[in-house]
Amino acid sequence: MNLATNLVTLSDVEAAAARIEGLAVRTPLLAFGDNLWLKPENLQPIGAFKIRGAANAVSSMSPSAVVTHSSGNHGRALAFAASRLGIPVTVVMPSTSPKVKIDAIRVLGATIEIVEPADRLTAALRVASETGATLIPPFDHPAVIAGQGTIGLEIVVEMPSVEVVYVPIGGGGLISGVGAAVKALSPSTRVIGVEPLLAAETAESLRAGRLITWPTERTYQTVADGVRTAPSELTFAHIQKFVDDIVTVTEEEILAAMRTLALEARLVAEPSGALSVAAALREGGRGVAIISGGNVDPSLLQSCLA
Amino acid sequence: MNLATNLVTLSDVEAAAARIEGLAVRTPLLAFGDNLWLKPENLQPIGAFKIRGAANAVSSMSPSAVVTHSSGNHGRALAFAASRLGIPVTVVMPSTSPKVKIDAIRVLGATIEIVEPADRLTAALRVASETGATLIPPFDHPAVIAGQGTIGLEIVVEMPSVEVVYVPIGGGGLISGVGAAVKALSPSTRVIGVEPLLAAETAESLRAGRLITWPTERTYQTVADGVRTAPSELTFAHIQKFVDDIVTVTEEEILAAMRTLALEARLVAEPSGALSVAAALREGGRGVAIISGGNVDPSLLQSCLA
Repeated sequence: MNLATNLVTLSDVEAAAARIEGLAVRTPLLAFGDNLWLKPENLQPIGAFKIRGAANAVSSMSPSAVVTHSSGNHGRALAFAASRLGIPVTVVMPSTSPKVKIDAIRVLGATIEIVEPADRLTAALRVASETGATLIPPFDHPAVIAGQGTIGLEIVVEMPSVEVVYVPIGGGGLISGVGAAVKALSPSTRVIGVEPLLAAETAESLRAGRLITWPTERTYQTVADGVRTAPSELTFAHIQKFVDDIVTVTEEEILAAMRTLALEARLVAEPSGALSVAAALREGGRGVAIISGGNVDPSLLQSCLA
Repeated sequence: MNLATNLVTLSDVEAAAARIEGLAVRTPLLAFGDNLWLKPENLQPIGAFKIRGAANAVSSMSPSAVVTHSSGNHGRALAFAASRLGIPVTVVMPSTSPKVKIDAIRVLGATIEIVEPADRLTAALRVASETGATLIPPFDHPAVIAGQGTIGLEIVVEMPSVEVVYVPIGGGGLISGVGAAVKALSPSTRVIGVEPLLAAETAESLRAGRLITWPTERTYQTVADGVRTAPSELTFAHIQKFVDDIVTVTEEEILAAMRTLALEARLVAEPSGALSVAAALREGGRGVAIISGGNVDPSLLQSCLA
């Protein structure tokens, strides 16, 4: 399969934008100083950009039911989108999940299935085969990528001359969609990925020209829990095509950006959500930082403010 | 002077909306649960709705220079609006002001004049008479009220069937403008003011049918520092005409609302900004809570999260 021929296009993203209207918020661009604008995806209904991809996947694929095995923002997003669209949704969660995360997904109307951590994918595949539910992965799917791309579309429509867009990278679904939309509309805009120095496998992969994954023990050292994942073949193909560079930030820079966002932009960001702002504040450039999410542990937020 | 004939009208507010475009953010309505939407004015450039009134006053009056004596959000808002419009601005601040507040206003391009607290108004009037600057008060002015009213306009345009709008009350500029706009466009929408129980002078005034002010020693007991002020004759006339009811919330309810907003809406609100949400969460109704601002002391925010 030639992945390069299967990249998400601007028209995929435009179709996604029409589908997700009413399910995702069209977030404003908020000026932050003279040269930086924030795209606050932490203000989405479930607190993260993932609602866009989940909503587009559910509404474009017309499934009878959906299932996923993400315990984080994608699980919440899929539960929210499917419930709103009246489609049964199962979220498989590891038995190690904190009760607060399980409750947050249950309250959205999802069926929860608790399994041992290692059995998550197997359990999701079993639900899919037993119930006919469609498995919607967190990033490795063109409909999910196209949904996330609506953020890039909104940025360029509102700010056609944007010089640079900073985007957090975990599995790469966000930057794949954003890159596809931004580069189609404004080829001279630089799309810069941001990773924690402690989980910089995509930066290393981009330099090496091939997908390199780091062991979980290594990436789990970063506080940015939303970006401990490596890209898939599909998202890495998008990154190679659409991303100009990937920069890394330290744990201290991430926490400082969270503090700055809370006190000066009045926005609560999770560590992964603040990556882009950490990079933008250091690197400069006239551009936009995408705040990918805001679901943060209260004690971590509290310690940032100390 | 018959104040009732000098109330701000819908056309004043509509004219203000055109003037402030590009200076104030058109904030989104964010769903929060099934029946409540948030209007996050804490996301304005200076972290509070005051930018709307200040921007409208400066742009409608075409002054050669402006001056004010507010050390809080209005001072920041006027400094921001005047600087952006290229008009010299002086902010008179009491010598008791924390350095961080002085710096926040200076960095916006304002001239700062530090005086003894009791000399603030005198100093502002002196600046006005010596330099020809126009004094722009924080709420007691039709242009300021009309600017704040653009929030009400945006709410009803986006949600024509809104049942109730909850609005914090301090000097009353915000609810005067919002009430004028909302009642003109949707007479059946209830406009509910919210005050801290510890600074409920407007609630008492509305019941008594006349303006009653409480001593500063009394109102300064509330944590909600933005609403320790009483309305003026002008704003009270608007409140009598446009406000259906005023409810009060406890200090505990205010701090709980700040915590809920930070963790579940990912928004940092100052205590005054969270008043409306505290009331809405208790009173119910299908409606909108205006978060008036988010300039909060880090240690207070931190203690809310504990």
